[in-house]
Amino acid sequence: MTITFIGAGNVAWHLAPALENAGHHVLSVYSRQLTHARQLATMLYDARPISDLNLAENPSQLFILAVPDNAIDEVCARIVLPEGATLVHTSGGQPLERLQQLVGIYSDIPVKTGVFYPLQTFTRGRALLDFEQIPLCIEADNDETEGQLVTMGQEISTIVYLVDSAERRALHVAAVLACNFTNHFMALAKDITDAEDLEFDLLKPLIRETIRKALDAEHPADVQTGPARRHDTQVMQNHLAYLRTRPVVARLYGVVSESISERAKA
Amino acid sequence: MTITFIGAGNVAWHLAPALENAGHHVLSVYSRQLTHARQLATMLYDARPISDLNLAENPSQLFILAVPDNAIDEVCARIVLPEGATLVHTSGGQPLERLQQLVGIYSDIPVKTGVFYPLQTFTRGRALLDFEQIPLCIEADNDETEGQLVTMGQEISTIVYLVDSAERRALHVAAVLACNFTNHFMALAKDITDAEDLEFDLLKPLIRETIRKALDAEHPADVQTGPARRHDTQVMQNHLAYLRTRPVVARLYGVVSESISERAKA
Repeated sequence: MTITFIGAGNVAWHLAPALENAGHHVLSVYSRQLTHARQLATMLYDARPISDLNLAENPSQLFILAVPDNAIDEVCARIVLPEGATLVHTSGGQPLERLQQLVGIYSDIPVKTGVFYPLQTFTRGRALLDFEQIPLCIEADNDETEGQLVTMGQEISTIVYLVDSAERRALHVAAVLACNFTNHFMALAKDITDAEDLEFDLLKPLIRETIRKALDAEHPADVQTGPARRHDTQVMQNHLAYLRTRPVVARLYGVVSESISERAKA
Repeated sequence: MTITFIGAGNVAWHLAPALENAGHHVLSVYSRQLTHARQLATMLYDARPISDLNLAENPSQLFILAVPDNAIDEVCARIVLPEGATLVHTSGGQPLERLQQLVGIYSDIPVKTGVFYPLQTFTRGRALLDFEQIPLCIEADNDETEGQLVTMGQEISTIVYLVDSAERRALHVAAVLACNFTNHFMALAKDITDAEDLEFDLLKPLIRETIRKALDAEHPADVQTGPARRHDTQVMQNHLAYLRTRPVVARLYGVVSESISERAKA
């Protein structure tokens, strides 16, 4: 397939080379800032960096929208696609219906839509991720596009699922809890070791083993440990006393402990 | 050293064999339930399972208290140690001073006290952990005991630190945030995938990469992603709508998102 990437950020940075490795051809890379488009284009076979969203004459078959969720509206308002083009987004948080609506509001040109959502966290500049073990969640508004996206997905990953918008929203919520939130708690932990002049490295073996145990278990709740799980109010009060100078963290400590304690009773 | 373990649970299960491998000799294992003491003793060289806390005649040099924090009081009230014995606990949450007080309240026999806190999560029955990469936090009420504990620590681990009670409390709070809480959020994520008949396996590559990124970063906050980090209220409202049938999780979602958002502004 011939492909244009709309967006040259974290997702495009990893997905575009992976699709080229599978034999597809990225014709152009759009970014609001041409320098960003150029940076990604230099990693590709012969992609052209562009900063204009009038793509009416662009010969790509597939346009992959890889921008932050809150930029999708604006891009859809400005983009002009060739007739018969396929536009897919790569977002966990956006229902397919929304993309259809946006495309319909801003243009009469018939466009096929779909979703190609890689369930992974990407960082531009970090070593290219191997997609083989990255789950791809596919959805489309027509069978032909669905088939094309599944085939393309299977060329780069061994884990390709058809996931509808409702399921994808649930997955996205679960991903926010299991990844974004866990990252935040590691950040708060490092704030504490930094403040005490202790090395955060001390906690790393514990963090790694915690994750191993949680992912090996039948259910992470089965291996829950800690003062909240033991209903050990003495230790929790001692911890809250320590956190009195960090009211936001103290509040978090309280509500998460409550949730752990309640779930253990259930 | 000759050692008696008070407690045959998760910590003792891993620590006792590690100390024997380093050439120490576990003479006896106490548990309230003799069957538990027996289970651990069978894994050791020739340790005797016991369920009596009158240890006045026990020839061990070192008594390692490896019971849950909320059992320490009760054990200290009942234990009788030989004169000159050394009693250490293995807890992150208990100041050394508390152990000294408890020992003093319940007995006039002079006992040396210390802390030998392995910063790891242990599960009885799980394959024995290699202590080499497990940080050990040492504290003692006298130099001789401190020296003995450091030496013993260095025989099983390459990461041995002197950590006073205030620092240990901070480390323990950080560990609860980075480990107990992250485990809970993985459990909540699995509750969601279970409810939707989706495979939790879909999230595992994402979780593993999130942890890798967080631990490789200068600071986990540097690699924070997600709707709260982007201040993407549309996606967050969509997620809260999904969570309306789970009020406890919805509340957590709100306060953690707020904390992520605030920390990003700081």
